[in-house]
Amino acid sequence: MRVTAEEAADLVATAHALADVARQATLLHFRQAGLSAENKESDRFDPVTVADRLSEERMREILAQRRPHDGIHGEEFGAKSGTSGLTWVLDPIDGTRGYLSGTPTWGVLIAVSDASGPIYGIIDQPYIQERFEGGLGRAEVNGPMGRATLKARPARALSEAILFSTFPEVGTEAEGAAFRRVSREAKLTRYGMDCYAYALLAAGQIDLVIEAGLQAYDVQAPIAVIEAAGGVVTDWQGNPVHQGGQVLAASSPELHAKVLSLLQG
Amino acid sequence: MRVTAEEAADLVATAHALADVARQATLLHFRQAGLSAENKESDRFDPVTVADRLSEERMREILAQRRPHDGIHGEEFGAKSGTSGLTWVLDPIDGTRGYLSGTPTWGVLIAVSDASGPIYGIIDQPYIQERFEGGLGRAEVNGPMGRATLKARPARALSEAILFSTFPEVGTEAEGAAFRRVSREAKLTRYGMDCYAYALLAAGQIDLVIEAGLQAYDVQAPIAVIEAAGGVVTDWQGNPVHQGGQVLAASSPELHAKVLSLLQG
Repeated sequence: MRVTAEEAADLVATAHALADVARQATLLHFRQAGLSAENKESDRFDPVTVADRLSEERMREILAQRRPHDGIHGEEFGAKSGTSGLTWVLDPIDGTRGYLSGTPTWGVLIAVSDASGPIYGIIDQPYIQERFEGGLGRAEVNGPMGRATLKARPARALSEAILFSTFPEVGTEAEGAAFRRVSREAKLTRYGMDCYAYALLAAGQIDLVIEAGLQAYDVQAPIAVIEAAGGVVTDWQGNPVHQGGQVLAASSPELHAKVLSLLQG
Repeated sequence: MRVTAEEAADLVATAHALADVARQATLLHFRQAGLSAENKESDRFDPVTVADRLSEERMREILAQRRPHDGIHGEEFGAKSGTSGLTWVLDPIDGTRGYLSGTPTWGVLIAVSDASGPIYGIIDQPYIQERFEGGLGRAEVNGPMGRATLKARPARALSEAILFSTFPEVGTEAEGAAFRRVSREAKLTRYGMDCYAYALLAAGQIDLVIEAGLQAYDVQAPIAVIEAAGGVVTDWQGNPVHQGGQVLAASSPELHAKVLSLLQG
């Protein structure tokens, strides 16, 4: 979908306004005692906090004012269809378990997508006050050390690559086996970063993120930010992954191709 | 060892001066391209960066000026004996793999110990600009959300507890099995935080940290900070652990006792 310069500027400004209110809303409850958590699924620990809902509500209020014709797909309050051809894809707190544990690794994910996928995205870490954005001609981080351009690492061998995944238990048994085929050949595998791992990849700090079972709202902002930084994000078959599923994010096309072949066995 | 109020104030001021120079030195190279890394052990990935050495050198310069009679035990440049009965135990970058990956989970660890163990410690996270300190009457964090008193969580059941360890591969096979006996009964297990997990325990965010194979400089600052916040840190037999080894940090004596029995099988 063709976006004019004026429209692009409005989308970027709106996305930052969303990230600002989400930052406020999430920090209101972060590291406070008595955080309430529910289990969304009976067989898995997946807390949803008051902050999660508050953060998405505040973002939806802004969209209702500024972008009433756009659709919304949010983690907490589902889908609202629009007429503009654009949809806001929101995860008010990606990494609720990290949030509940007080770690600075969760984030607010905001993406704008058209029929082909995300065209712009923000990964915001409220506690660190660090914001990564990519798309519509932008690729930038603004954080404790100021502003910098996002640029994924140049191609390097898998034996020199740093791999991240949120949990060591990656997906199903077959998915876990595929993950370990890559992990065994990587220089270093680390866990526990939630969406922050994607931000680190866009910032040229790490080489790979591999995860399974993601939702559209988990992955659309990372796709926009990483692609703007020169990285590659697909599913484990090399297809577009903005609808969610198995995610492979790589710092270079060469490394992406190598890992894709390992994942497929 | 008895420390006067004047002496305590000088120790605290010196520790903060060390943390300040270490913060500068480590950030000078953090997230910069071309970070040089060596392997200290041939069979394990354990990078030592330029920043690691620079950080400890700067701290030692300050100690030479301000506390010439104290001993020093640092990760990078070994031991210097003193005559005061006090030793500074320094880890200029705890979590070098986290540092090399760009995560905000590594830290600078500074402890002052007498013959019985650490009497004061600092866990500093330079990128977040967050400092946790404990001992000599202090238990405080100073970070992005301002100052707050550190207070470990009240006793809760293991089934409600959040457990952290840096890697899923905890120590030897037997140590890993012991860890999993605890992990299976905990509400949530997370990885990847380096020393930041101990800070989260002192801040009342998580309940347990279990690790094996630690050095004195990895654990002394965490001991001081967590004990000042009301938590308990011992080895897996319940003995003092300031010389390093297998570490169990718990938010309450009750939870500590429960986990100790599980670790011992």
